[in-house]
Amino acid sequence: MATQTIDDLPTPALILDRAILRRNLKRMSERLLGAGVMLRPHLKTAKSIQVGRMAVEGHDGRITVSTLAEARYFAKGGFTDILYGVGIVPSKLAAVAELRRQGVNLRIVTDNLAVARAIAGAATDGDTFSVFIEIDSGGGRAGLPFPELPGLLDIARTLHAAPGVDLAGVMTHAGHSYHQNTPDGIAAVAEQERRAIVGAAETLRAAGIPCPIVSGGSTPTATHSRDFTGITEMRPGVYVFNDLDQEFIGSCGAGDLALSVLASVIGHYPHRNQALIDAGALALSKDISAQEFQPKVGYGTIADPPARAMAVVACSQEHGFVGADDPLPYGNLPVGSRVRVLPNHACITAAAYERYYVVDSDLDGGRSVVDVYDRINGW
Amino acid sequence: MATQTIDDLPTPALILDRAILRRNLKRMSERLLGAGVMLRPHLKTAKSIQVGRMAVEGHDGRITVSTLAEARYFAKGGFTDILYGVGIVPSKLAAVAELRRQGVNLRIVTDNLAVARAIAGAATDGDTFSVFIEIDSGGGRAGLPFPELPGLLDIARTLHAAPGVDLAGVMTHAGHSYHQNTPDGIAAVAEQERRAIVGAAETLRAAGIPCPIVSGGSTPTATHSRDFTGITEMRPGVYVFNDLDQEFIGSCGAGDLALSVLASVIGHYPHRNQALIDAGALALSKDISAQEFQPKVGYGTIADPPARAMAVVACSQEHGFVGADDPLPYGNLPVGSRVRVLPNHACITAAAYERYYVVDSDLDGGRSVVDVYDRINGW
Repeated sequence: MATQTIDDLPTPALILDRAILRRNLKRMSERLLGAGVMLRPHLKTAKSIQVGRMAVEGHDGRITVSTLAEARYFAKGGFTDILYGVGIVPSKLAAVAELRRQGVNLRIVTDNLAVARAIAGAATDGDTFSVFIEIDSGGGRAGLPFPELPGLLDIARTLHAAPGVDLAGVMTHAGHSYHQNTPDGIAAVAEQERRAIVGAAETLRAAGIPCPIVSGGSTPTATHSRDFTGITEMRPGVYVFNDLDQEFIGSCGAGDLALSVLASVIGHYPHRNQALIDAGALALSKDISAQEFQPKVGYGTIADPPARAMAVVACSQEHGFVGADDPLPYGNLPVGSRVRVLPNHACITAAAYERYYVVDSDLDGGRSVVDVYDRINGW
Repeated sequence: MATQTIDDLPTPALILDRAILRRNLKRMSERLLGAGVMLRPHLKTAKSIQVGRMAVEGHDGRITVSTLAEARYFAKGGFTDILYGVGIVPSKLAAVAELRRQGVNLRIVTDNLAVARAIAGAATDGDTFSVFIEIDSGGGRAGLPFPELPGLLDIARTLHAAPGVDLAGVMTHAGHSYHQNTPDGIAAVAEQERRAIVGAAETLRAAGIPCPIVSGGSTPTATHSRDFTGITEMRPGVYVFNDLDQEFIGSCGAGDLALSVLASVIGHYPHRNQALIDAGALALSKDISAQEFQPKVGYGTIADPPARAMAVVACSQEHGFVGADDPLPYGNLPVGSRVRVLPNHACITAAAYERYYVVDSDLDGGRSVVDVYDRINGW
């Protein structure tokens, strides 16, 4: 059988360039190894065992996940130190305990005293738990806001005192780094992130409570931080693939986008200078993160020449509207021809797909399908 | 075993209220029966055989789909007259022909002469095709723009002359009806839709080309049209579930929203008057359609009391930020408690889930899980 190429794939399809993926993984791995910080990649972006295994090469195999479905999937794939990074609720403790009884150190997160008490209560039944306390380093999502850290010691003492509960440490996600687009701006957020978790760790230690792990992380801060002092691990996620948003804020270069959506041109509309493709709101997602710094990016730009001059300017469920400032080159885009769309936000776009068709731009420009990686979606 | 209730479900989960679904289906079915128009429901919203079967009760079973995956799934479920409503490309004709050889009248759509020629060419190999020509009735998505209808007769003659090709008729989707929020405004779009497809059909017939099916459709126009003269079938889709967007434009009432996302409260942030839930960008989607007429709707409103006073004001991948103008009633929303979020756009939100947990608000307020319906996602 002839080698399958991207021209043989049904569209829309999710394409992963392994050469770029490897470079992205290597860059982050070496950066954190050089800084003496452990890498706990957030696999919510890739949701793929194959990518996860590549991401932890040269590290100790710890990972982060965003759903219990991911936790079960990666546990089955042999990962044994897994942080479920979304605030736990009591009703999920049974599922956590089940994986832990199988020998997986599935760690959980809270910032809430009632939940800490529920964890302590659940542990009295013989199950053990490993818990991080979440700190808000300025992003305003989850976590105890720094520097007030309201209730930190109550939560920590509840967990620390509970038999069967391991207070693993403190963690934060500096999501506000996504709204900076200069190395200095991101480095300032990284320093804010560092001060918050190191400060929380010191507060615990000053009270006689051990805090072994001090966990930070986001792709921008892991990339641009100038000081990791006191941080023991970082949890970047989207760096594995990168996307237009990461490019525009400066976490990566234009050549570092590993993920794209392969689509077919399905219609020409010269009276409004548009074409339609068969990748719309579901195939691309309606995430418009990258428009914050580049409004013309729409729902994604066309990857191939003329590079970036065309974007998906609108989309309905299965239709993407391709537009440009200049007249569209319809002659190069006959109906039935294929384009690749670079996503705004790789994590959200990828979630519509069950698999990656893997190509390698170092081999043949990314034409042949060299592998297929699976994904775990849902919850 | 005790009956499973929504309190037993893992979160996030997709909840479908069968009582509301049945009322929505009945209303549209009776309206079109009364108007003498065939119903070809667009099952891109439900993507579920169980819902599809209920939707065509009392009709002849014709349906619309938005992907080849749906076409295969519904064919396996016994549906035999299926319109694949997204412009076809030559590379998909083999998959279409395969289903047609199995006895499924899978019909396709184009607005492009080169594609019409490719279909005619593919039909010479012994396969047959049934083709609609798409008309743009003012929405500016796919289709030949009315009234110019550039190239209509060339496309129609190519298809009509080809042995093995059935020119099924003309079709349009008046997507611009979603941007009207009064019955008069929607009725005006419906009349525009009617004139465009009936006008296209008359152009064909005047040229001696038969045009048996004249297919319109969108939930708003099917609901508010005042004249169906000349239209033979309608293809509404989202009416099966409805959503905040349909409510705000007036396609349905506040009690007609059958779909919601069940989520757990995972954190309290009184310093910024917010709570977090475990339903974020993936569980709700980043579709913000309903903000066009109600900016405060965010990514969805909280369904249960205090009704609609709280909304998901922001979301990251697995976190939804719940906010309100008034102080949040934290006492009624302890961490671990559950809320239901009404989606902006049901079609996009539902696509993140593999199944519906079906409840029935006429039985016990929607507490017990009375059934589970599957869904076909992907392509």
